[in-house]
Amino acid sequence: MSQTTTLAREQARELAMEAMRARGFPEREAAITVEALLDAERDGLPSHGLSRLPFYLDQAASGKVNAGAIPRAEADGAVVRVDADHGLAFPAIASGLDAGFEVARQQGLCAVSIRRSHHFGVAGAPVERAAREGFMALAFSNAPSAMAPWGGHKPLYGTNPIAFACPRPEGEPMLLDLSLSKVARGKVMLARKAGKPIPEGWAVGPDGAPTTDPETAIQGSMVPAGDAKGAALAMMVELLCAGLSGSRFGFEAGSFFEAQGEPPGVGHLMLLFDVDRFAPDVLARCEVLFAAMLEQPGVRLPGDRRHQLRRQSHDRLTLPTAVVDDLTAIAAS
Amino acid sequence: MSQTTTLAREQARELAMEAMRARGFPEREAAITVEALLDAERDGLPSHGLSRLPFYLDQAASGKVNAGAIPRAEADGAVVRVDADHGLAFPAIASGLDAGFEVARQQGLCAVSIRRSHHFGVAGAPVERAAREGFMALAFSNAPSAMAPWGGHKPLYGTNPIAFACPRPEGEPMLLDLSLSKVARGKVMLARKAGKPIPEGWAVGPDGAPTTDPETAIQGSMVPAGDAKGAALAMMVELLCAGLSGSRFGFEAGSFFEAQGEPPGVGHLMLLFDVDRFAPDVLARCEVLFAAMLEQPGVRLPGDRRHQLRRQSHDRLTLPTAVVDDLTAIAAS
Repeated sequence: MSQTTTLAREQARELAMEAMRARGFPEREAAITVEALLDAERDGLPSHGLSRLPFYLDQAASGKVNAGAIPRAEADGAVVRVDADHGLAFPAIASGLDAGFEVARQQGLCAVSIRRSHHFGVAGAPVERAAREGFMALAFSNAPSAMAPWGGHKPLYGTNPIAFACPRPEGEPMLLDLSLSKVARGKVMLARKAGKPIPEGWAVGPDGAPTTDPETAIQGSMVPAGDAKGAALAMMVELLCAGLSGSRFGFEAGSFFEAQGEPPGVGHLMLLFDVDRFAPDVLARCEVLFAAMLEQPGVRLPGDRRHQLRRQSHDRLTLPTAVVDDLTAIAAS
Repeated sequence: MSQTTTLAREQARELAMEAMRARGFPEREAAITVEALLDAERDGLPSHGLSRLPFYLDQAASGKVNAGAIPRAEADGAVVRVDADHGLAFPAIASGLDAGFEVARQQGLCAVSIRRSHHFGVAGAPVERAAREGFMALAFSNAPSAMAPWGGHKPLYGTNPIAFACPRPEGEPMLLDLSLSKVARGKVMLARKAGKPIPEGWAVGPDGAPTTDPETAIQGSMVPAGDAKGAALAMMVELLCAGLSGSRFGFEAGSFFEAQGEPPGVGHLMLLFDVDRFAPDVLARCEVLFAAMLEQPGVRLPGDRRHQLRRQSHDRLTLPTAVVDDLTAIAAS
């Protein structure tokens, strides 16, 4: 068990901001990134939280991440194109949504297509933000390859998240956030770090044989959710994200973790639906489905657990001490 | 083994058209419907082929399907709303795509939202048509309930297909077409008709227990592809199709097969992406992914089997004799 350190959100924010400033990130881009990572910690998703920041900053130090990138969003009809310019994803997502909300209010619909980007972070976060603005929203991202096409052994696709949110007239948005591997690859990473085996059925080795060794699994391929169907959907996400935006497919993308090498250069796609332009009383109708779901014992709305963890988080974060030490060292550099 | 009859496509078309005319369908709506069913037969998808037509026509006779419906498509920004008016789906899909292609060429993107509709047919067909017009396309439909929310036993969602197509500079579009149940419900229907058991793992009974009896399975719930993830995606499709268009959710929808009762009244959503508005050379980039897939022995592009069956079909259809007899009787009525 590694040591942990508990910080108030405000302390963690200041530490992370200082570290980002030390690596040359502009104030807006740093603030958006830090807030996204803090939100992941708050929502019980530490694999997408502050422990990512030392990796981001090492990549900024090596020049693999463009710390000075200022994302540019360009609206054209119902499309918003965003060039992340090999900076971090979060500022590009924020710029894309800012422009996208305006377009979706005009056109009823908007596609935000982001190119030359980096780790998408929590895929549910941008769609949740859109739902709070009143939009139904879908988001997709590709990622460095971790999953083979069906019938093959060599990974070509990322585990490629799909997220969806639906506003609710009362309370928190309905929020769906899933990766197209049977389990998130972050769980294999954590097992490797902890030196523990993984359950059979999560991954196969480079030869296509099932494995319980996390290192072999990382060299090999994650098992897709729903077998051939998950693999097909992951390919679709590659085409919608990297193909459509002119970004790198999973098998072309540099790592999100290594400081050296080519930038990831992956792509994202977000779709915003202005519900009032589709039909009357859309959100009231959606409540009818949610009510029918909740009538059944044992059924929860997707996203409920995340909202619940958030309410319990009390604005304090428990972080690996090694992460706090890394950030402190970078901030002082 | 039931008896079959082989017809030339032209003969089958004439027979089906006469039967639709006898039930009062207008010429355009009948022709679009018959062509869609013939295409399903040609592509090796008989569960979505002409054997559906006697069910459609019995529903027209009872008034459950509005034989006189003329779909109306209304463009508003990047959205095309189509009212199928409780007619069959195919003419509404065609009207929606006709309007949607124009909007997508103007806006770069279009959502075609269809309400008060019926059986979507082969979900890959409309996206394939869109891909032949140069668009990347996504399609979703909800359907009468056959799948329970995760953790529950009572079906609320249809098996809810997702289809996606990508144009290719040479040759047939890449075509993905899947339902969100582990296997298509049509396979359970065929097993029931044949009096054969189904493999374990396809479905559960009304009590949530696994079953190999097709009748118990149809009373119960199909197992979602990828378990909780497939169930969540099926819920998302309910919201995007029925919620967004003002149509009936799976658990509110009348059957696609019974002649009596409420109309299905389900909804569909199609998304059209004008690739040239997103980035330069999108389709050439997509070929890079396809080439990497095909380098691996044992990997095929989604849709290849369908295209192959189509090339082998020689414009002749083998149909259950009972279907030919049903249609002949209706045509003569």
